[in-house]
Amino acid sequence: MDTTPRELAEKNDKKIVLLVLDGLGGLPREKGGKTELETARTPNFDALAASAECGLHLPIGFGITPGSAPGHLALFGYDPLEFPIGRGVVAAMGIGFPMKPGDVAARLNFATLDAAGAISDRRAGRIPTEKCAGLCELLKAVSIKGVEVFVRPVKDYRAVVVFHGKGLSDAVADTDPQAMGVKPLDPVASDPKGERTAQAAKDFVAQARGILASQSPANGVLLRGFAELPHIPSMKDLYKLSPVAIAVYPDYKGVARLVGMEAVEDLADLDAQGKALAAAWDAHDFFFFHHKYTDSKGEDGDFDAKVKEIEKVDAFLPRILELKPDLIVVTGDHSTPAVAKAHTAHPVPFLIAGEATRADGTAKFGERACARGLWGTIPGRMLIRIALANTGKLKKFGA
Amino acid sequence: MDTTPRELAEKNDKKIVLLVLDGLGGLPREKGGKTELETARTPNFDALAASAECGLHLPIGFGITPGSAPGHLALFGYDPLEFPIGRGVVAAMGIGFPMKPGDVAARLNFATLDAAGAISDRRAGRIPTEKCAGLCELLKAVSIKGVEVFVRPVKDYRAVVVFHGKGLSDAVADTDPQAMGVKPLDPVASDPKGERTAQAAKDFVAQARGILASQSPANGVLLRGFAELPHIPSMKDLYKLSPVAIAVYPDYKGVARLVGMEAVEDLADLDAQGKALAAAWDAHDFFFFHHKYTDSKGEDGDFDAKVKEIEKVDAFLPRILELKPDLIVVTGDHSTPAVAKAHTAHPVPFLIAGEATRADGTAKFGERACARGLWGTIPGRMLIRIALANTGKLKKFGA
Repeated sequence: MDTTPRELAEKNDKKIVLLVLDGLGGLPREKGGKTELETARTPNFDALAASAECGLHLPIGFGITPGSAPGHLALFGYDPLEFPIGRGVVAAMGIGFPMKPGDVAARLNFATLDAAGAISDRRAGRIPTEKCAGLCELLKAVSIKGVEVFVRPVKDYRAVVVFHGKGLSDAVADTDPQAMGVKPLDPVASDPKGERTAQAAKDFVAQARGILASQSPANGVLLRGFAELPHIPSMKDLYKLSPVAIAVYPDYKGVARLVGMEAVEDLADLDAQGKALAAAWDAHDFFFFHHKYTDSKGEDGDFDAKVKEIEKVDAFLPRILELKPDLIVVTGDHSTPAVAKAHTAHPVPFLIAGEATRADGTAKFGERACARGLWGTIPGRMLIRIALANTGKLKKFGA
Repeated sequence: MDTTPRELAEKNDKKIVLLVLDGLGGLPREKGGKTELETARTPNFDALAASAECGLHLPIGFGITPGSAPGHLALFGYDPLEFPIGRGVVAAMGIGFPMKPGDVAARLNFATLDAAGAISDRRAGRIPTEKCAGLCELLKAVSIKGVEVFVRPVKDYRAVVVFHGKGLSDAVADTDPQAMGVKPLDPVASDPKGERTAQAAKDFVAQARGILASQSPANGVLLRGFAELPHIPSMKDLYKLSPVAIAVYPDYKGVARLVGMEAVEDLADLDAQGKALAAAWDAHDFFFFHHKYTDSKGEDGDFDAKVKEIEKVDAFLPRILELKPDLIVVTGDHSTPAVAKAHTAHPVPFLIAGEATRADGTAKFGERACARGLWGTIPGRMLIRIALANTGKLKKFGA
């Protein structure tokens, strides 16, 4: 990676807020119409936009649709193509599991298998988190020679399994066939160096099947996203920042921890996030504030509900501003247009507001207004550099 | 090259049309005036632009004037700086000659030499293609030890020569001095590894001089653009596309074949191209539709004639649209302003219209309107990624 900022970074007491509305970017519901953000009544974002530098960002690159983890990595200043992150690692980091170099983590979904061993429900009737936690307790009985296994609940039917031992590798294919009516796949090494881990995973699945045999509906497990810890320089190392994540959902705390952020635990909603932000204010200088539900509503295909989520965050904005951040970035990690019901590759609107910003007079925070903002369309990983520069956190390069 | 799309490409039945008006970009005839495209009456392009994402693209990079081959390579998604293509290869591929790795091709122009051996006409009075074909037949008599030689007619006085044998290299300088009244240059190796090929080319030129001695006006040959086949991954390999070229001129079919496109043969004009497009519709999902004469008229310095060629393609557009492509890109491979009578480095206007595009409300398809379009100015090789993403042909990156 380009580590120029590391040579130039200088600590000061200026405070930066990165407010992420997950999946913010959108599309019009009908040809010629407005996007979700353009439709939303957002007086606070609009007031900010008028005195801000606006633009669109490409989290990964032209035409590349970002997953959540790479989308956030970009916002934290990293090239997601350079630091691929497996699903297992995101899950483990999300629940604060202390993975070590050489560990291999995988996402574990509890599932329902029929008498013949075929999958009848990939989500085991969406069992509640408490049930999931109980099943994870039962799986402590699994014992594999030379490999320590940890199973931890995440949310609902979702859990994570971490393999700890010598000679492990993430070169193992998913066991989740992503289909019903077929048996789970055997864990197979995708490369010779994955053999030992594939064998351990096979043992684990077999023992889990025995332990869960009498359970209903969760009598089986599906594993996917085998992953090792990537080596990512921390935001502290690169930027001399002391960053903290204020997020409700585990996965976003997970990505934040990967780059060395602290993450506040047990936040239920915006109000709790607001309190946590105020409580963390003095001890930190970079605040990653994450709102999930813009993305969820986009994934649901619910245009109006996504509009409402945007308006909810807009109404909340004054609680952030009253803390008087020196600079605030408002953006998304990718687009999730309701009409697409999925992440898309469309560039994401952003605004950067602070003392040293050139106000571009954007009247309404929206995709097309931002396209005509001062910055045009830029790589997502550059937003943090602009924020650092505009708060005096990057020294001059050269004499 | 960045092969991220290869990992993400997913085949579906969506159809993409890339409509290239060669040399589309222009300049005003007089200060303060309009460019060719801005002058042209283009109701169909304008209607498309209003519901499209518009911008300008740089085929190679800032300040770099593209040749035809690199300009097109960029539109097909390749970095032209990474895949330099010699003129000889473009010529050979254009006529469908099956070059093999290690072969060296050069463009051969029949020329008129005076009694002293100096060039009196670099194009031999622009002899017709049939005459050219006859001369190529005569040159079959050339015999070089250890090297097979193929001479094939292209168009008018233009032909191509391919050397096949061991130890050949394209490190050989042109014999065409690009001037009149001087003798053709000897083929000289520009690097020691080109010695063997330079010697073969020298033999070839000498024998050709003997064979053509009694001919008039074509009694000599000029060679330029010695080139080996480059190693370019195909569009099928990279994007899982099944692409086809609908072009009149051989060189454009040649570049298309280099990236693994099929190319329809024997197309005389737009009408024939329209029929070929319809005929190819079911069997392919990417259609490169090329119109040459916008560039030709620009090279001629004929502003009005270039305007008319643009209007001709605009009038033809409905025949493409009635096939209901899922996405269409309209652009050029470079600029050829009539006032410059040559290719220039000016960015080239583009529009991308499809279901999942954000309409930027551009009222008139033109250079300055596109500069204010949603995309601003972007690398030409990224257009195809946007097209692929907007037709669901690239999966999400990361979890």
